[in-house]
Amino acid sequence: MKCNLNCDMGESFGLYKMGDDAGIMPHITQANVACGFHASDPNHMRNTVELAKKHGVAVGAHPSLPDLAGFGRREMKMEREELLNIVLYQVGALCAFLRQADMPLSHIKPHGSLYGMAARDAEIAEALADAACVYGVPVFGLPGTLHEEVYTRRNVRFIPEFFADLDYNDEGGLVITREHKHVEPEDAARRVRQLINEGTLTTAGGGVLPTKAETVCVHSDTPNAVEIAAAVRNALGNPKPEKTS
Amino acid sequence: MKCNLNCDMGESFGLYKMGDDAGIMPHITQANVACGFHASDPNHMRNTVELAKKHGVAVGAHPSLPDLAGFGRREMKMEREELLNIVLYQVGALCAFLRQADMPLSHIKPHGSLYGMAARDAEIAEALADAACVYGVPVFGLPGTLHEEVYTRRNVRFIPEFFADLDYNDEGGLVITREHKHVEPEDAARRVRQLINEGTLTTAGGGVLPTKAETVCVHSDTPNAVEIAAAVRNALGNPKPEKTS
Amino acid sequence: MKCNLNCDMGESFGLYKMGDDAGIMPHITQANVACGFHASDPNHMRNTVELAKKHGVAVGAHPSLPDLAGFGRREMKMEREELLNIVLYQVGALCAFLRQADMPLSHIKPHGSLYGMAARDAEIAEALADAACVYGVPVFGLPGTLHEEVYTRRNVRFIPEFFADLDYNDEGGLVITREHKHVEPEDAARRVRQLINEGTLTTAGGGVLPTKAETVCVHSDTPNAVEIAAAVRNALGNPKPEKTS
Amino acid sequence: MKCNLNCDMGESFGLYKMGDDAGIMPHITQANVACGFHASDPNHMRNTVELAKKHGVAVGAHPSLPDLAGFGRREMKMEREELLNIVLYQVGALCAFLRQADMPLSHIKPHGSLYGMAARDAEIAEALADAACVYGVPVFGLPGTLHEEVYTRRNVRFIPEFFADLDYNDEGGLVITREHKHVEPEDAARRVRQLINEGTLTTAGGGVLPTKAETVCVHSDTPNAVEIAAAVRNALGNPKPEKTS
Repeated sequence: MKCNLNCDMGESFGLYKMGDDAGIMPHITQANVACGFHASDPNHMRNTVELAKKHGVAVGAHPSLPDLAGFGRREMKMEREELLNIVLYQVGALCAFLRQADMPLSHIKPHGSLYGMAARDAEIAEALADAACVYGVPVFGLPGTLHEEVYTRRNVRFIPEFFADLDYNDEGGLVITREHKHVEPEDAARRVRQLINEGTLTTAGGGVLPTKAETVCVHSDTPNAVEIAAAVRNALGNPKPEKTS
Repeated sequence: MKCNLNCDMGESFGLYKMGDDAGIMPHITQANVACGFHASDPNHMRNTVELAKKHGVAVGAHPSLPDLAGFGRREMKMEREELLNIVLYQVGALCAFLRQADMPLSHIKPHGSLYGMAARDAEIAEALADAACVYGVPVFGLPGTLHEEVYTRRNVRFIPEFFADLDYNDEGGLVITREHKHVEPEDAARRVRQLINEGTLTTAGGGVLPTKAETVCVHSDTPNAVEIAAAVRNALGNPKPEKTS
Repeated sequence: MKCNLNCDMGESFGLYKMGDDAGIMPHITQANVACGFHASDPNHMRNTVELAKKHGVAVGAHPSLPDLAGFGRREMKMEREELLNIVLYQVGALCAFLRQADMPLSHIKPHGSLYGMAARDAEIAEALADAACVYGVPVFGLPGTLHEEVYTRRNVRFIPEFFADLDYNDEGGLVITREHKHVEPEDAARRVRQLINEGTLTTAGGGVLPTKAETVCVHSDTPNAVEIAAAVRNALGNPKPEKTS
Repeated sequence: MKCNLNCDMGESFGLYKMGDDAGIMPHITQANVACGFHASDPNHMRNTVELAKKHGVAVGAHPSLPDLAGFGRREMKMEREELLNIVLYQVGALCAFLRQADMPLSHIKPHGSLYGMAARDAEIAEALADAACVYGVPVFGLPGTLHEEVYTRRNVRFIPEFFADLDYNDEGGLVITREHKHVEPEDAARRVRQLINEGTLTTAGGGVLPTKAETVCVHSDTPNAVEIAAAVRNALGNPKPEKTS
């Protein structure tokens, strides 16, 4: 089982710094780049794309609900058409910087509450599938949820991912909090080895559930994010970046 | 002398309506579509692109300074690199809806204060040229200003335009106000006939200056905009939309 | 039964116009003034307060979820403390213009989805009660819902209101849509006469439910809003503005 | 010569952290609290006011041009009336949290480019004077500039301040950059001792100019801000907070 390593990145905004992108980029193979709705701005988007290019890292769009003050982690009720439109807007904006850097769009990975809502609400997953169809790229998501079901039905390539730095609840869903808490790098690495060797994850409640992944996610705004990325990379056998689309 | 007819459009925002786009679209050949920074949002951008497609109208990007409350008509001091990045962001966002509608990007036309500043400040015109180079499209601008000088020097195709519904000052510059005032459709048409027949414009002070244009602009937020568009279209000999790129 | 007449107002933004405030103000006794989060900006807030003063109309704050693009009509999940803080921010901002005009704050009336959510979720009603306690003013709300229960329990004066221009569902809840639809002025007036004479409302499904009101609401963004306001005012016996706090 | 010590604070936004407010607050006597237009949000405003109260620090409003992405450090052209309105809005919003904490508003200090523009443009200083008149509080500013001239003429109490962590140009004006650069705490302290003992400042070019101050400013977003605040406090003889209004 060969796994990529992806990271949510480029989440600084104006003078506000978030995450050590320069520290993390050498460790990963895929960057999910914020598009200005939950984090980032045109300056940071361009810099992040250029940093990814320098390290040969594939770039995907990381669109969000329109909520800078809540970092995209507050749920908002939006219709499918409106969601499609805000996702297209963000993906298109990122593509301008990819065009400038002569790089392809690798994938789409919804951010925060949009990610969580798509796992539970088919209309939202459909909106993401609609956007993916416009760009012809795969979507990252949680296996066994509506991410997998809807994208697969729509013939959008679904890329299952595993979260090395987040807790899973008893049903295998993610525990998404407004701010990410501390994770020991070794704990993250152990979870990844369990994924690779046994195809399972251990929930916050101690249960063991089967899972699968083509890519493992770490977040740039977790404390010690660089150490976590390095430990997970090692657990994955030092994957090299490759084009995902 | 054959002239296109362009209009700044798609400037509604959320529940707020601005301009009668459906009324104007049948009269024009080129739509400059707002990209969310001075007006519009992803829903209105998509609808405007679809409306343009229905009428065979070419679509250009109409990027602005980031100033929704001021409708992009308040000057802001920004560096060339930052301006380039916000223009790329907006053009890219529009391109998502063009991609969805299977339409090409026709041109870039800066909005409001960004337009005025580029006419007077070479660094700002350079930023627009930088963006045009990424997309390989022409830029609309005021002849005889830094628009023409900089874009031409940079080998970006410069498309001179004439404003049928705005006043010109004694130096041939535009009088840009926060809100557009009433213009008689016949006055707009007369100005256009003067442009076509004599290659001149009459300033607010009564002077006559030579000018040139490949396209004539009307605004969708001027009172009686549809009547103005119809009168100008007639004065131009009913031009048909054609691909500009 | 004596009833005031209130209207959600001051909902223009930048160059965008919403509602005919100058036309409606002479008909009403209480203005709920938008505070910049779903509509309005500092210029429009000041103008609306001055217009209300000219007509002797009492001014209340009309705070919203932070959602200009959705006009405060998209639900967002926020914690009680955060809601309290955004409500305080908006009420305080309005109070600056009241201070400038030497007028008291009359009341608080939550806007759009915040209004609807407070009717169903006690934590949200508590946040509004918290804000009302800081300012010592009453809160407008829907009788028989958590508005009434929570505010009353918290010793915040609850002012029940009736909506002359919106539909009620079978449970007596409001049907809140993103955009307000056409209402015949005479229909609005008839509903108000029924309220005054029989203490009841008729639901969209045709049922008749008991209700009560100290104030009747009309919206400035409903088509024909001035005519509706005039008809409702007449049905209420031409109430005169009075200070409500 | 007795001097207060003030600091621009409360400049975090959402999940974004800016400055070590908890570290600085014990050292200062006056906090200039961001109001949401260049930095901060309702949550951070409330927390900052509560932190100031805990330390007995007087709270002033720190209003800005509306420019979160540029941290209020990009100039924008706005009319006097519009500036007054945005300043009133921000001051009022802060006053909500002061009311909740039962604290008075101490003063107004314009932020960033608004501060710099008011020093050079009388219309902008007038707008600030207008706002100060509504609230009856003093305004902080640069002595010898239009701050002093306009506020004094308008009978608004002018409080001259000295910047311990910024450079002065040859004319005695401030060098305002988008991001604050490193300053040695001892250098800041030395400048303050020179101010206190000799009533002068040394410009970036090495010139010595007379100046005066009732309060000395440090910024929370300068690297080593806590050490700078501690050193300046010591140089000022450990001033104790007192009500300034």
